[in-house]
Amino acid sequence: MSIDYQSRWKRTVALMEQEGVDALFLMKPANLAYFTGDGRPCALALFTRKMECIVAVPECDLASVRRSSVATEIRAFRSEEELFHGFRDVLHTLNLMQSTIALEKNFFDAALHEVFTSHILPQARIVSASPITSQLRMFKDLSEIECLKVAGHVADEGMAAAARALRPGVRECDIAGEAEFAMRRAGAEGWSSATYVASGWRSAMAHGPASPKIIEAGEVVQVHLAPIALGYTVDLCRTFLIEPVAVETANALRAYLEAQERGIAAAVPGAALMGIDEAMAASLEQAGFGDGFLRPVFHGVGIEHEEAPIPGGHAVIHGEQKVEKVAAGMVLAIGNCGIYREHFGVRAEDTVWVTEQGPVAFTRHPKT
Amino acid sequence: MSIDYQSRWKRTVALMEQEGVDALFLMKPANLAYFTGDGRPCALALFTRKMECIVAVPECDLASVRRSSVATEIRAFRSEEELFHGFRDVLHTLNLMQSTIALEKNFFDAALHEVFTSHILPQARIVSASPITSQLRMFKDLSEIECLKVAGHVADEGMAAAARALRPGVRECDIAGEAEFAMRRAGAEGWSSATYVASGWRSAMAHGPASPKIIEAGEVVQVHLAPIALGYTVDLCRTFLIEPVAVETANALRAYLEAQERGIAAAVPGAALMGIDEAMAASLEQAGFGDGFLRPVFHGVGIEHEEAPIPGGHAVIHGEQKVEKVAAGMVLAIGNCGIYREHFGVRAEDTVWVTEQGPVAFTRHPKT
Repeated sequence: MSIDYQSRWKRTVALMEQEGVDALFLMKPANLAYFTGDGRPCALALFTRKMECIVAVPECDLASVRRSSVATEIRAFRSEEELFHGFRDVLHTLNLMQSTIALEKNFFDAALHEVFTSHILPQARIVSASPITSQLRMFKDLSEIECLKVAGHVADEGMAAAARALRPGVRECDIAGEAEFAMRRAGAEGWSSATYVASGWRSAMAHGPASPKIIEAGEVVQVHLAPIALGYTVDLCRTFLIEPVAVETANALRAYLEAQERGIAAAVPGAALMGIDEAMAASLEQAGFGDGFLRPVFHGVGIEHEEAPIPGGHAVIHGEQKVEKVAAGMVLAIGNCGIYREHFGVRAEDTVWVTEQGPVAFTRHPKT
Repeated sequence: MSIDYQSRWKRTVALMEQEGVDALFLMKPANLAYFTGDGRPCALALFTRKMECIVAVPECDLASVRRSSVATEIRAFRSEEELFHGFRDVLHTLNLMQSTIALEKNFFDAALHEVFTSHILPQARIVSASPITSQLRMFKDLSEIECLKVAGHVADEGMAAAARALRPGVRECDIAGEAEFAMRRAGAEGWSSATYVASGWRSAMAHGPASPKIIEAGEVVQVHLAPIALGYTVDLCRTFLIEPVAVETANALRAYLEAQERGIAAAVPGAALMGIDEAMAASLEQAGFGDGFLRPVFHGVGIEHEEAPIPGGHAVIHGEQKVEKVAAGMVLAIGNCGIYREHFGVRAEDTVWVTEQGPVAFTRHPKT
């Protein structure tokens, strides 16, 4: 399906006018991909209200960028100095030195931001780009949905391979290897997050990248996959029980899966966004697991592993705007928390498309 | 080999005194790993001149952090709000609200940095932590060298698998899958950078993550691996020629390998750090490839894929200090550039330990 960049650009200009922004300065690969079709690292773009889109890339990348980018002008640089000085020249030519420029403040590190604002944009008014970029990228168009479906299928292939390989005596990193290999076979271009395989006591960790730990009988194993395909990513997590497991563990998993279903069911257009969180929390509370539960329970997903909408206080930490309502076109990873006890944790996470007809899951590996 | 954290902490205090820093505030997993033995994400540490090291982690992580962290105190939080408010309480208790606090300005994004300095540390003097953290981590101790050797071996296993699988008709992502699977078998815990497999026209790109492109006869294939093992990572890149290739291509690769050897040979204690860059540039200039050459040619590597020492102007962009001299104990990835033509690029990169007895390579896959 072809991508309608003109329509993205027109919506961008409308938001720029609303926010009083003269130009967007983009360096985050996810935003470059969204605006130009080419999201390689070490590139930058300036997008103006007149729909000029000037991209700069390493000289050696010129030919390949021309294949995939819809930028109106493509420039080359041969060093980082040339990159930033060239950018200053562009601002000069376009008479934007004293304008309002939106920067990706949740991508620039604080050190680079300081260099940038004092040396490259000393006279400009600097604002955050995320009110514009997130407002656009939060609502997926149908070409994006096609990519996300493929990424969901890739993740399912990986989870099926992990499930086949799981048994006592195998190391976590071997399970990760089987899952990744199957996802590469299915066309994965990479990973938007580390592959987590966390067994036994490691499953109680909020973040559990695969380690050389050997999986043993009676353990819980969390497997968490985030492949990239066609430039898009999904989140998929499943918890496997290597029998014989304690009754408490099986009960916790059952309660979590039930709560996740309630969370997904709450993702309907017009509902309160934090209602997803509240639905899961209420369900776990009722099942007696309200205490070992880490929030928030969801986040947006798309070109990036974690993108708008980001819930509640988490939004501020991520330099994102608070979003009040669920809306059609959002794609959410729901179940991003878990029930944790001292020696184990259970979790399930799926990537879901919010539509007027109800939530549609892109990840479909069986839950039990 | 056991790790001597006490000695790291003592060197830290000496540097803190020198820089007038009262406390280090750490959130970067690489720094947390170096200071405490546990580098999980979503954790933070405050390290004071009195060698108090207070760590905060998600509540569910408490038990597993206790297994691996040498922090003097471990606290739990259940939300990001609790995390940051808890940190403010610690500063209060330690009477550090108006002190000089070093933050990881090249890790914090600009948005979080603003929230942090205005809400959590409004009265403190904020400076960059990298003059301290980089000065420490730039010189690897022997326990780190043991880990880097293992990571080098893992990378070599991956490159051997890639070499075995390479043939016309195979997709780039399948080669990546074979390499990653072999590295997982060898104990890889994850990847510090995307696996690059860039063939034909894609090899001319500065950054070439594996894609579904099919590899064809007559093409150049760059394979770039960066596994993590025992918490450490290396950089290994090789260029393969799928025969029959043009004479110009084979000549370019020969010239690049020769230049890389000269760069590695320049990595001796006491020499100018930029001498590595100059040695490679001079060699390529002499061979007639000075024009299609992207700099800088090296960077430090260790817990992170790119860490101190970072060369020249690149250092400023990364929020790092300029380093003048090569010194024993540095670990450098050398060859991080390539010769680029419009339709192909060649590169080779190795991870090398600088010792008084000369450079020792951790990555050893044959170059031709």
